[in-house]
Amino acid sequence: MISLVAMRARIERGELTPGAAIRASLEAIGRHDSDIRAFVVTNVAAGVAASSKPLRGIAVGVKDVYDTADMPTQMGSAIYAGWQPKGDAALVMMARRAGASIVGKTATTAFAHMDPTTTRNPHNLAHTPGGSSSGSAAAVAAGMVPLAFGTQTGGSVIRPASFCGVAGMKPSFGLLPTTGIKCYSGSLDTAGLFAATVADVLVALRCLTGRDFAQSDEDPPLRVGVTRQSFAGPAEEDSQAALAIASQAFNDAGAIVVDKDDPEEFGAAWEQHPIIADGEALRSLAWEWETNRELIPVKLCQALKAAEDITPSRFDEARRISRKARLAARAFFSDVDAVITFSAPGAAPKGLDSTGDAKFNRLWTLLGVPCVNVPVLHNSHALPIGVQIIAPFGFDSVALAAALLLERELAAVRT
Amino acid sequence: MISLVAMRARIERGELTPGAAIRASLEAIGRHDSDIRAFVVTNVAAGVAASSKPLRGIAVGVKDVYDTADMPTQMGSAIYAGWQPKGDAALVMMARRAGASIVGKTATTAFAHMDPTTTRNPHNLAHTPGGSSSGSAAAVAAGMVPLAFGTQTGGSVIRPASFCGVAGMKPSFGLLPTTGIKCYSGSLDTAGLFAATVADVLVALRCLTGRDFAQSDEDPPLRVGVTRQSFAGPAEEDSQAALAIASQAFNDAGAIVVDKDDPEEFGAAWEQHPIIADGEALRSLAWEWETNRELIPVKLCQALKAAEDITPSRFDEARRISRKARLAARAFFSDVDAVITFSAPGAAPKGLDSTGDAKFNRLWTLLGVPCVNVPVLHNSHALPIGVQIIAPFGFDSVALAAALLLERELAAVRT
Repeated sequence: MISLVAMRARIERGELTPGAAIRASLEAIGRHDSDIRAFVVTNVAAGVAASSKPLRGIAVGVKDVYDTADMPTQMGSAIYAGWQPKGDAALVMMARRAGASIVGKTATTAFAHMDPTTTRNPHNLAHTPGGSSSGSAAAVAAGMVPLAFGTQTGGSVIRPASFCGVAGMKPSFGLLPTTGIKCYSGSLDTAGLFAATVADVLVALRCLTGRDFAQSDEDPPLRVGVTRQSFAGPAEEDSQAALAIASQAFNDAGAIVVDKDDPEEFGAAWEQHPIIADGEALRSLAWEWETNRELIPVKLCQALKAAEDITPSRFDEARRISRKARLAARAFFSDVDAVITFSAPGAAPKGLDSTGDAKFNRLWTLLGVPCVNVPVLHNSHALPIGVQIIAPFGFDSVALAAALLLERELAAVRT
Repeated sequence: MISLVAMRARIERGELTPGAAIRASLEAIGRHDSDIRAFVVTNVAAGVAASSKPLRGIAVGVKDVYDTADMPTQMGSAIYAGWQPKGDAALVMMARRAGASIVGKTATTAFAHMDPTTTRNPHNLAHTPGGSSSGSAAAVAAGMVPLAFGTQTGGSVIRPASFCGVAGMKPSFGLLPTTGIKCYSGSLDTAGLFAATVADVLVALRCLTGRDFAQSDEDPPLRVGVTRQSFAGPAEEDSQAALAIASQAFNDAGAIVVDKDDPEEFGAAWEQHPIIADGEALRSLAWEWETNRELIPVKLCQALKAAEDITPSRFDEARRISRKARLAARAFFSDVDAVITFSAPGAAPKGLDSTGDAKFNRLWTLLGVPCVNVPVLHNSHALPIGVQIIAPFGFDSVALAAALLLERELAAVRT
């Protein structure tokens, strides 16, 4: 994989020109993408920012639900075949402002729902990379780009990051703008990042937002809760092993690790996620649904059909239950700085007919809290598995600091 | 003006065909719009829904920041001259689903900010209709359409409704979807409606959303607070007179009317509005700002330039202060069902170089609470002035019920 931090350092030391860095990414795409199928469009003429900017020389892959002024935005759907938006999504222009070069659009499931892309997992081409940000996770994992953008409405950043063995972050709801990103669910859609390591994600986020996300070095020991989300059913042994290793690593790194029970409000809210997500999608995708229904793929079609039966009072009830869970989250986080839990039920499933299960992601998206995937182990089939670090709403710096601590401790054990 | 309720009744009784109703609107546009300049594009071929639908025969004017599949969407900006989106904004398709016909796009200030359109106030062509939903308010006021869509980020629905003497509603934040509407500020932008009367707004909202907004007839007497928003400075005599008349009318209608002091959190939050609105706009409009700055008009340019100095910590502080005001609003509304206050500082100012002042609207947009403008009086220059009825977040039915009560009481006094 290409480390964004390492690449910036090489550019800064003059060992690599920004232009050569972008060309290297384009060449890597040329070499690997016939196998991986992470990109749907590339911009071989992607330029380099003129002046010195923090992300100069950083090639970015952008999920194909983000508007781009210089490339089509096709939403993973034949409805938008060849569609060319007018301008850039806000986050795309923020990347350009910071000096990054957008080298291509990455494969997305149709409208970021569950119908799979043809993208393959770089760790084993017979396995899914996860979704819906399939191409973005795979492009980073295959060493094509140091940074990629995704979105998460259920588990579309954290799950593919875990399946592909990359760092991934879904920041607090609203930290990154969603303007110019195709809407599925306005109250859940969250822009997120993929990079080789947590340290890379942190630097990218800093350069994009102008926020420093610094944590004081003099903080008392980190208090980490471990939650197994029993309301969502069991995880596979591989994921349980990853959680145990992560807990031990935090312990070894001097953190205080405690088991956390999930308040009952969490399980209740978890069940509401599809009501809110699909209920809102039926409005967001109203034009597509009414005028191009024959081009809507099967899983999305089922979700929207089911959403037609959601009454306004049922929808409002789902919002109320979710709101209670957001209040309960405050108490939940009162005695820990962050929690760790499964990023996915197990390693990437075999086959490309499913993008896997988002059951361990939905609650946290609904709560709007920051989540960071940290790769932890490879299973007996050499497939990566991660855990996610979760902090309270707005405490993205804490989630990142905890994830960095885990990443460093795991690296120290390996070496 | 064309009453939506009256028109539906005529269509239902067979006195008017839906096609004739749409043609009448198009003819009214043809007759008046060279003076009023409410429309930037019309669809003279606008069809009528095939089967029986609740808004069949209702012509709708749509603010030109809403995407429309069959008409350009030009955002009041040369940057988007002739721009044709792919699909319809969610609310546009919801209107079509309900049987309405979109007959044209109405004039908007550039990106729904403060630089005026050429639209003129139907009550006096030398006066502004208000903004940013200038064309939508004027189109209803001039009797061209029975329903029009706008947006409010500061005071862009309630103020033009007051200036043009029509009913206008900014529902609770999120009640109507903003998907496919050009974003200025993701946490403030709210879709809203204009119609001849509150009763018309209520029926339109019911048909669009499938919600009934019914209030029980057996409710105890309505408790109405009167607030003068002293944190925003004074209102002119005309607006003070309108508020006094509205208070008296509520009293006459059997409501309990009490004066309300604004908690200090309201004034503090009111000051944060530009930080949040323009801070978010600098991201939402990043592409336009970076690539087409020479085409951004002067007031928007000033706002975005000022926003470049807003640090992340200043922005976060503004969000925290706003959040405190939302908590304070719960206590504020604990002893009243709704409050009434000024819709605007006075009648529509003379001249077309300003759309007027949103100072009495910003707080309520920031709180996300439902606001309804009810026309109350005409001043000595025959210009209309309204008051706004405001209910707690999510209590749109209460805001509408109180506005209906006021509208009926005022009508009874007049006859």
